[in-house]
Amino acid sequence: MKTILTWITPSADQIHIWNYFWAVKPLLDMQKENNIYFMIADLHAFISKQEKNFIQQASLNQAKIYIASWLDLEKVILFRQHKVPAHSQLNWILSCLTTLWVLKRMHAFKDKAWKWKQENISAWLFNYPTLMAADILLYNPDLVPVGQDQKQHIEYAQDIAEKFNRNYGETFQIPKEFINKEVATITWIDGRKMSKSYNNFIWILDSEEQILKNVKRITTDSIPLGTAKNPDECNLYKLLKLFLTEEENWQIREKYLTWNFSFKEMKELLFKKIIEFVKPIQEKYNQLSDEEVIKILEQNESKANQIANQNIQKVYDMIWM
Amino acid sequence: MKTILTWITPSADQIHIWNYFWAVKPLLDMQKENNIYFMIADLHAFISKQEKNFIQQASLNQAKIYIASWLDLEKVILFRQHKVPAHSQLNWILSCLTTLWVLKRMHAFKDKAWKWKQENISAWLFNYPTLMAADILLYNPDLVPVGQDQKQHIEYAQDIAEKFNRNYGETFQIPKEFINKEVATITWIDGRKMSKSYNNFIWILDSEEQILKNVKRITTDSIPLGTAKNPDECNLYKLLKLFLTEEENWQIREKYLTWNFSFKEMKELLFKKIIEFVKPIQEKYNQLSDEEVIKILEQNESKANQIANQNIQKVYDMIWM
Repeated sequence: MKTILTWITPSADQIHIWNYFWAVKPLLDMQKENNIYFMIADLHAFISKQEKNFIQQASLNQAKIYIASWLDLEKVILFRQHKVPAHSQLNWILSCLTTLWVLKRMHAFKDKAWKWKQENISAWLFNYPTLMAADILLYNPDLVPVGQDQKQHIEYAQDIAEKFNRNYGETFQIPKEFINKEVATITWIDGRKMSKSYNNFIWILDSEEQILKNVKRITTDSIPLGTAKNPDECNLYKLLKLFLTEEENWQIREKYLTWNFSFKEMKELLFKKIIEFVKPIQEKYNQLSDEEVIKILEQNESKANQIANQNIQKVYDMIWM
Repeated sequence: MKTILTWITPSADQIHIWNYFWAVKPLLDMQKENNIYFMIADLHAFISKQEKNFIQQASLNQAKIYIASWLDLEKVILFRQHKVPAHSQLNWILSCLTTLWVLKRMHAFKDKAWKWKQENISAWLFNYPTLMAADILLYNPDLVPVGQDQKQHIEYAQDIAEKFNRNYGETFQIPKEFINKEVATITWIDGRKMSKSYNNFIWILDSEEQILKNVKRITTDSIPLGTAKNPDECNLYKLLKLFLTEEENWQIREKYLTWNFSFKEMKELLFKKIIEFVKPIQEKYNQLSDEEVIKILEQNESKANQIANQNIQKVYDMIWM
């Protein structure tokens, strides 16, 4: 039984199918045998979504999707970050123990500071690694599942936890990262990087019509029917694979390798699989009211606060504040 | 009846006489007719005092001195910053709304970044203006008494409050700064800038012996007895003046202007005045136990939390998080 901390940022008002396979599905697998803290990172979302009246509804909609996806709320503590003040509290303490030099060399900062105009960027961009470290360390998790691009943030969290323990005595468990490599190779409809401007993803709440349209748009090569293909190089196969049982998977691979398939047939199969997958989630989603979700969240937030308040108090006690 | 927010940073384990005239005395005058939030800024102190086991005792000792100085705890809410989570919470929100450019041009940052080695400075130094703005705006004060050197921080707090109100609707009262000019001209024992390495100040809990020693060290000029002096250019007079009634003040000025005084006599008078001033504070201080002070602080912190929680909730509501 391990403790796991994971999160999703409500910067869109629902999730796409790839979010599901990155964030929700691993959680459904892990919830059987672990304690999971699942944070809706609304304080991080505020960074990029500062318009009035966006974040709460986006958080509720996303929470509904997770609940509709058979999240086991006995095992998973699903909470909104801003409802647990200890995140902001620990953020300040960690920021006092961090040098500007460390923050400046974070990839995410360097990338964006380069793209955006110089210093006309928000201080959050500079500071969010300390908040993310606070998010993690507050719950003393064993594992933190992250994408490859967030590895540096976990390393920083490990470093600052070690520094704190060294200076003030044993306080934080040093978390380990857990990188799901399989999911990291998923490609998008058009094989390009996910982007709102390319509109190259399928939302989990999309209508059948919209899903069909997007499946048809999936890029394939133009090698004629009856030619053997390597499934692992086929964008369509990579998407399809997410929905297949092991047996189905071998049947499909066989078809690719024996030249016995058409892209049309594969797209029909993918469409059918996606619909089978999203329908029950959409149905359960539509049955949940905002009020029910808020009630569930508030119960979970009270549990998260209990742990987080104990731990921020321990931090203050170790410093003797 | 105005609302005033003021603070002192527990980065030393007691206060010196100049602290008293800067921070405590104006408060004693103001408490008669105003509501005062008086913050022990331990989260700011953590910036420069990161050694284990320092901040709590320093905060308690300082609180004892204020209480021993006839702080009216019916009128003044005396609280430790770290006990009110909303300060850290609002800090994050404000930091998301602030550009790096604004933080980089703060005098305090520019001064210290120049003195210290480049980037080997803590991220707090960069971020504390947002925490200070949070400290202030949480209580919607009318006035914030500050030294001239902190004027820029108040201007930033005003700007960010206006920006928030503009973006999300009327939330914060725009605070006004209140600069006590008279006190701003106090000089130290040796006429130099206050510094621990010069040891050029008198602590409020110093023994008679120590105070006498320090009064003797006060620098004066070497113009012989019987020569007229401008009191306003005399370091000794400037210190003495703090303790004089208006009538006494005119008598002393007369002596300076009519050449009818000796520095020795002035130093004796100053010594007598300081002892008269510190004795009752020291006596009351020694009667107070840590436990009594903690109890008083906790009562006050519960009042501060009530207001601060209301206001951070209002902030979240305006953003609709």
